[in-house]
Amino acid sequence: MHAEEDRGLTEGRGGIAQFERILALREVLRGAVAELVRVTPEHVSLTASTTDGCNIVLAGLGLREGDEVITTTDEHFGLLGPLRTSGATVVVAEPEAEHITAAITPRTRLIAVSHVLWTTGAILPVHELRAATGLPVLVDGAQSVGAIPVDANGVDFYTVSGQKWLCGPEGTGALVVADPDALRVARPSYLSQRSHEVDGAFEPKAGAARFDPNLTPHALTAGLRAAVDDVSRLGFERAAQLAERFRDRLASEGQDVIVPPERATLVSWRAPVDESAAIVRRLAEADVIVRDLPGRGLVRASVGWWNDESDLERLVDAL
Amino acid sequence: MHAEEDRGLTEGRGGIAQFERILALREVLRGAVAELVRVTPEHVSLTASTTDGCNIVLAGLGLREGDEVITTTDEHFGLLGPLRTSGATVVVAEPEAEHITAAITPRTRLIAVSHVLWTTGAILPVHELRAATGLPVLVDGAQSVGAIPVDANGVDFYTVSGQKWLCGPEGTGALVVADPDALRVARPSYLSQRSHEVDGAFEPKAGAARFDPNLTPHALTAGLRAAVDDVSRLGFERAAQLAERFRDRLASEGQDVIVPPERATLVSWRAPVDESAAIVRRLAEADVIVRDLPGRGLVRASVGWWNDESDLERLVDAL
Repeated sequence: MHAEEDRGLTEGRGGIAQFERILALREVLRGAVAELVRVTPEHVSLTASTTDGCNIVLAGLGLREGDEVITTTDEHFGLLGPLRTSGATVVVAEPEAEHITAAITPRTRLIAVSHVLWTTGAILPVHELRAATGLPVLVDGAQSVGAIPVDANGVDFYTVSGQKWLCGPEGTGALVVADPDALRVARPSYLSQRSHEVDGAFEPKAGAARFDPNLTPHALTAGLRAAVDDVSRLGFERAAQLAERFRDRLASEGQDVIVPPERATLVSWRAPVDESAAIVRRLAEADVIVRDLPGRGLVRASVGWWNDESDLERLVDAL
Repeated sequence: MHAEEDRGLTEGRGGIAQFERILALREVLRGAVAELVRVTPEHVSLTASTTDGCNIVLAGLGLREGDEVITTTDEHFGLLGPLRTSGATVVVAEPEAEHITAAITPRTRLIAVSHVLWTTGAILPVHELRAATGLPVLVDGAQSVGAIPVDANGVDFYTVSGQKWLCGPEGTGALVVADPDALRVARPSYLSQRSHEVDGAFEPKAGAARFDPNLTPHALTAGLRAAVDDVSRLGFERAAQLAERFRDRLASEGQDVIVPPERATLVSWRAPVDESAAIVRRLAEADVIVRDLPGRGLVRASVGWWNDESDLERLVDAL
């Protein structure tokens, strides 16, 4: 990232050669993200965040009053906000397949849920939901991509965060769109069009690149590309094992640990609602970074391949 | 920017202290941008681009079929795209006040034009248009802020680019909103809300901060802040003088230079449509970076305080 910024400073950021180089690097990144989630590049749009992805999808779907979207009790505002402003009624179900499908009515236009809940680390069966219901499914992948192996095929929309489990730069992400031609470009950028008229009528680019909302800063593109290149199967295995060990160890210390039947690499345990913030502060003083989920009575650790057993012991000691 | 990235690497990007520091720096930047365009911080949203700003405004206005928006023949797709996808009919007028006002009908809902045309550097009388018509005015400030002194008061919406004339980082910008309460938050982010319910219903933040579409990467926030701090009245004067000198010198060389009655720091001259790209390439080989405007038969130089007379001579020699 420093090298790319230095290049901009010393060689200038204008000029056709620089622009073409930036565009080429974007396509390298698009290909790397596509491979990571097992799709082809024409299904990948490069965004700044999962919030970006959710907003692009909801704006494009053109939902209206009377339509219904189903989500769960455990979603982040990055998904909830776009759902709410879409004009549809937001139906909130418990985050389990049976409750989600029970909420379906003839007015349901979309199921929009996390793959991994940010509250408990539970994995939702998003592919099965899509297959069983036949309804469009938007998956918020904020806590999944980079944490667990992800196959974005078989759902309609899948958002990716660059800055979380991929350890990429802030302000990076992606959106996977199964059928780009079926989603309206509701938030166009210069990158969306192949050609346009003087009144803005435009021929969209082929594939999901038409949804690219901004030209990602060059250093960030390079940074995310390096981060994605670093993802390894061994990392997924290591993180899963370590998260299990964290859960066991915390439970053996008497903590009330959440253990969903299907679970990723977030480890949450219960704490009194009015004490969770103080616990987070106490741990921070010991250089152990966890977060609380305000109002939910949960404290949460993000366990990755970058952790080891000594981190776990430091956490337990500081608790 | 490097220092901020290094801090993230060595101190970590999680944790409450880091997050609060990032949010505090955002407010410093918001204040600096506000001062630059002579408004107060509650009218400023921090975006990634002028395109972002145009999309936020058009999504929020909720225009519909039958509504009309007036723009000019000389706008960038970053404005035209959002206008086109708004659902309104885009009415295209010649870029002069009399033609714009002549295009007004009872169905006109918005006038959306550049302050400085990216084609010719002409300055449009955006404040006078607002005062004379009483219609909402969206100003695309991509080629004005940092190039000429700008007062964003007296119009409804004004977009700012960080990466162009301010010499700030790519992926930065701002949107000035005169009356934040009157524009719907159509593209919410976590930053938009003060509090929210489980179905996404939310209490927006006070002021234009509610429109902040993403958490700008920390290094970019720091970079734009440094860039804005560097803006000086002397720079505006120097750039204006130098642009005049460029125009005179190019004309004396026999070039057909565009000289709008009110003009900023872009200097354009005519070239055969099928030759302009070759001219740009020839100049690039001499390390003179200009661009052509495809299909318009124009070549354009961006003249800033960072140029001097020797750049002008190099340009003339290479032509």
